[in-house]
Amino acid sequence: MTLQAEIDGWCINTMRFLAVDAVQKARSGHPGAPMGAAPMPYVLWDRFLRHNPSNPQWPDRDRFVLSAGHASMLLYALLHLTGYDLSIDELQNFRQWGSKTPGHPEFGLTPGVEVTTGPLGQGFSHAVGMAMAERWLGQRYNRPGLDIVNHSTFALVSDGDLQEGVASEAASLAGTLGLGKLIALYDDNDIQIEGSTDLAFMESVPQRFEAYGWGVFGPVDGLDLEAIEAALRAAIADARRPSLIIFRTVIGFGSPQQGTAKVHGEPLGADNVRSAKDALGWPQEPLFHVPEKVRVHMRLAVERGRSAESEWREKFSRYVAAYPEDALAFEKQLRGELPPDWDQGLKDLFHPGSKPMATRVSSGTVLNALAKRVEALFGGSADLAPSTKTLIAGCADFSREHYEGRNLHFGVREHAMGAIAGGMALHGGVIPYTATFLTFSDYMRPAMRLAAIMGVRVIYVFTHDSIGLGEDGPTHQPVEQLMGLRSVPGLTVIRPADATETLEAWRAALLNTHGPSALILSRQEVPPLDRNLYPSAKALHQGAYVLWESRAGLPDLILIGTGSEVSVALDAGRKLATEGFGVRVVSMPSWELFDEQPRDYRESVLPGEVQARVAIEAGIKLGWEHYVGLKGVVVGMEHFGASAPGEILYEKFGITAEAVVSHARKLIA
Amino acid sequence: MTLQAEIDGWCINTMRFLAVDAVQKARSGHPGAPMGAAPMPYVLWDRFLRHNPSNPQWPDRDRFVLSAGHASMLLYALLHLTGYDLSIDELQNFRQWGSKTPGHPEFGLTPGVEVTTGPLGQGFSHAVGMAMAERWLGQRYNRPGLDIVNHSTFALVSDGDLQEGVASEAASLAGTLGLGKLIALYDDNDIQIEGSTDLAFMESVPQRFEAYGWGVFGPVDGLDLEAIEAALRAAIADARRPSLIIFRTVIGFGSPQQGTAKVHGEPLGADNVRSAKDALGWPQEPLFHVPEKVRVHMRLAVERGRSAESEWREKFSRYVAAYPEDALAFEKQLRGELPPDWDQGLKDLFHPGSKPMATRVSSGTVLNALAKRVEALFGGSADLAPSTKTLIAGCADFSREHYEGRNLHFGVREHAMGAIAGGMALHGGVIPYTATFLTFSDYMRPAMRLAAIMGVRVIYVFTHDSIGLGEDGPTHQPVEQLMGLRSVPGLTVIRPADATETLEAWRAALLNTHGPSALILSRQEVPPLDRNLYPSAKALHQGAYVLWESRAGLPDLILIGTGSEVSVALDAGRKLATEGFGVRVVSMPSWELFDEQPRDYRESVLPGEVQARVAIEAGIKLGWEHYVGLKGVVVGMEHFGASAPGEILYEKFGITAEAVVSHARKLIA
Repeated sequence: MTLQAEIDGWCINTMRFLAVDAVQKARSGHPGAPMGAAPMPYVLWDRFLRHNPSNPQWPDRDRFVLSAGHASMLLYALLHLTGYDLSIDELQNFRQWGSKTPGHPEFGLTPGVEVTTGPLGQGFSHAVGMAMAERWLGQRYNRPGLDIVNHSTFALVSDGDLQEGVASEAASLAGTLGLGKLIALYDDNDIQIEGSTDLAFMESVPQRFEAYGWGVFGPVDGLDLEAIEAALRAAIADARRPSLIIFRTVIGFGSPQQGTAKVHGEPLGADNVRSAKDALGWPQEPLFHVPEKVRVHMRLAVERGRSAESEWREKFSRYVAAYPEDALAFEKQLRGELPPDWDQGLKDLFHPGSKPMATRVSSGTVLNALAKRVEALFGGSADLAPSTKTLIAGCADFSREHYEGRNLHFGVREHAMGAIAGGMALHGGVIPYTATFLTFSDYMRPAMRLAAIMGVRVIYVFTHDSIGLGEDGPTHQPVEQLMGLRSVPGLTVIRPADATETLEAWRAALLNTHGPSALILSRQEVPPLDRNLYPSAKALHQGAYVLWESRAGLPDLILIGTGSEVSVALDAGRKLATEGFGVRVVSMPSWELFDEQPRDYRESVLPGEVQARVAIEAGIKLGWEHYVGLKGVVVGMEHFGASAPGEILYEKFGITAEAVVSHARKLIA
Repeated sequence: MTLQAEIDGWCINTMRFLAVDAVQKARSGHPGAPMGAAPMPYVLWDRFLRHNPSNPQWPDRDRFVLSAGHASMLLYALLHLTGYDLSIDELQNFRQWGSKTPGHPEFGLTPGVEVTTGPLGQGFSHAVGMAMAERWLGQRYNRPGLDIVNHSTFALVSDGDLQEGVASEAASLAGTLGLGKLIALYDDNDIQIEGSTDLAFMESVPQRFEAYGWGVFGPVDGLDLEAIEAALRAAIADARRPSLIIFRTVIGFGSPQQGTAKVHGEPLGADNVRSAKDALGWPQEPLFHVPEKVRVHMRLAVERGRSAESEWREKFSRYVAAYPEDALAFEKQLRGELPPDWDQGLKDLFHPGSKPMATRVSSGTVLNALAKRVEALFGGSADLAPSTKTLIAGCADFSREHYEGRNLHFGVREHAMGAIAGGMALHGGVIPYTATFLTFSDYMRPAMRLAAIMGVRVIYVFTHDSIGLGEDGPTHQPVEQLMGLRSVPGLTVIRPADATETLEAWRAALLNTHGPSALILSRQEVPPLDRNLYPSAKALHQGAYVLWESRAGLPDLILIGTGSEVSVALDAGRKLATEGFGVRVVSMPSWELFDEQPRDYRESVLPGEVQARVAIEAGIKLGWEHYVGLKGVVVGMEHFGASAPGEILYEKFGITAEAVVSHARKLIA
């Protein structure tokens, strides 16, 4: 055995047993994947990965995504050993309150974790988004001899990852786009929780990925380091298409129960730990053992990383000298900053006397205006751009021939769209947006949830936001989706009432750097709110505001509307005013923004003394008692929609000014 | 041209122009797919499909699923022309209030519509479920020479269907299971809404389906009826694996804008209608023209259908004679009836003095007891059976070798699992159940929504229902999912508090024949509620009930708990009682069941006079004001969870008896 081979073996076993000991100590976790899969990421990190443990934020680092997030200890072991700021104490506190080593990797918590993973298929799909962002930024900023954006994206994926539909969607798109610097390492171990993968997964994975247009390498023996290295080298060299390397591995390698589902998701148990350490020639004690030679070898990554980043910094200095304006723009873009003039001219887009306009149309106008100044805006739709109004005029499509294109075409793949957008936001340099009908937000929820957990800026455009879309019927009419999105912590949901609020909604979404925003837009036209008569739409940033009052002082009644129902509230309010009631109409585009306001402001909009309140929203009533209480009334939906022209549905389902008036009269009486 | 060819041409053009005229009259809809794809379903229905227009419920009919639901007029035309109870007036009322011809096909509304479709990928995946149910029932009931269950499932699918991840998941499973009687007709027209499919879909579909283990036929010229017929014949003959037939078609065939995205989703416009009719030799008038020879030819389906069903009835009579008990069981199973003794013995499963037990474990016990008597129960998990406790002991796995197996293995494919379960329920003869962690219900929402729209009985088992799952961390800890499911109209959500409520929850789910039910179960142990001390768990069927009161009469305070938090409410209630307060503890396993109760009952549980109310649930607070109003308190979550042991998370996030007591004191004061 060569010295190199010996060191490699020690390093890999260190990774394995850090995982085994951590899971054993935590009394929960997944030992099987780290034991079986350790060699591949080891070889990758040891011989290929360009990263800088001293600066996990180095923009041109290679990305490594552990899509099989349950193998988290594998990543924590690598981060610890290669010198990231993750102490052995943290590894010993695996899965405990306050540690940096949670059960599944969490972006923002642990240095070097690029994506929060765990829900299968997501890491892989986020990696596709990272690779797309890399190509797009590179095409924009690289100059001959000065390729300041030039890095690979690696993802370690499991059988489960490749079974998830979101991964299939993302893989197909990655193939279409020819993302040559995306490399997936497939831990092909034939085992999943319920037993053999043959129970549910007899497909030919290589053939499937070839069908997507990927280069497929292997199968490679997952214990043969030379073969692993050769396969990685070949995959990296294949620059025209994404690569999948198939590594044949044995789950729980070394344990008496290796190769069975028993080693997947729980501690091995003391006896099996002992046997595994014996089998692989590992000392029983101490626990969390890191031999000195392993530490020394793995820490070489620190110096390699510093040197790699220095080289890049030197190149970037030359870039700054040659292209000072681009360099500045690049740096700002990476920091997620908006240009100083980013919202100039927006206020001139819509005029007081303008005609009724669907908020999806206003949104398209705003997006196009913003795109001229905010270069980082990059997105598209899941095959509904003409309906969602999310095409940026005059810009190319993003394709393998045109990586500079700004219009993304996701195909009918809402879920991958969500995950890819999350990956682009994580990559940095991009403010991604997505678009589909609100009802299809259901397809994207797992990806949106991850964005909310990670707190990254993604803008989800959802149009066709109610029964108002009409004839397409109940499958296309969202009912529960709007409230369902509000229920996601960290997601800011904004449903503007007209063009002016739509403009502010986009501004709010861009300014929200700490989490995703969802813009909820109408298919149907809504009347403009003349801001000469009403307060400025800037009040949208407070979430809700008094739009109109029949008279000063405490009202008899408050009507609360959102989006297209604000005009219903206004009509009802005016009618009730003619009957002598003191009526206030509140436009409430965003619950999240409103609930963040100081109590005084909230009280000024919804005074506690006024309990006669009616909320009007063409969505599920559930939740609205938050504002109207048990004494108020919600004018909304309690069932699915139907196929008919939208205005007829509003009539039939009783979401009309007349219905509001009738409810309100009873409330006051 | 032969007479046959001439008739065929007239029939196909009739279908095309019924669609064109209907879309034009409705001023909305999708003319392109019906115009381009009409020949394939025509040939299928004319020459292969075994169905009985006079009895759309004939159990052994072939199933035809229009996965590309936007082409609804194609299906309505076929139904009308072949003699289903769908008049020409209905076609003229396409997409109007009260018609049987909604924008997308709706199961239960229109005779002959097998699945509600529109959201892409779903019809295809539901068809997989139908084909699975067919194999399973056939294996159970067929006898030599008496194959009373023996029919095919056909699905017409579009590019968009095949881009959706849910379809990829279902296709892979269908290949694994060798579903030879499943045949997908792929309308391969190169066009989607945003333009050429090349924008986002360069993969090789045939190669992908071959990788899944499907037989792939074609490409076939979608205008060549003989080739279509030959391909269908070959696909039907291929009995060992599912088949995909690729038909090359031209979207909007006949229109001046054929082959472009412009003909996809809006009326052609009067000029283009005129040109299309000229181009295909169709009379401009009358609209909705059905030539007599077409009517006569297509209506032959009525006689063919009667005769096919008669043959089957004759066979079934012989079956009844030979296997009277099986015949009886089969018929009951098809009607969805439970056997008379279905819930016998359940009450003996759990004893008053039993130990703490996770409700997922109680659920496993109940499921296994039920499975012994309810033969129709058929389901499984998305690779989490050991955790969700949903394996039926002593039963085989459902596989291509064992179609009698009752344990389904979906792989890590939650979305397809949901859709397949819906398809099985639609097929009939099966009461499907699915299982995964509650957080992954997000992956299944589009399929669950369809089940709710259609009102079919599917039982979704969701375990690991809160932060109580502990170390797996925020990605695995549901926060917003429980409320998110409650927001879906027609879905009954039940979160039982202990083993006895879990038993009743299963009973409620089985008795709920008009819609899906979701059972929300804990990973962690919960204390048993001793029914010698507390009211019977049968009260679960009222959704909520008074579990305990410190004294008779109107209480000072009501504590409302669900699931694992009922014990928290009880602890807090007892503590508050020692302080002299009159406390009532309400167990509220199901909002939907409670809200259905008469006002008197609801008032008896939650008297309007008592406004001091605290709701306790380890999920998002949003929505709980429905029961506690603006003056009450919700003890719940407002953010994502964390990785740590479950009991520590309850402490850290303040979901404890102490916190409840503290809130309650302030409320009363």
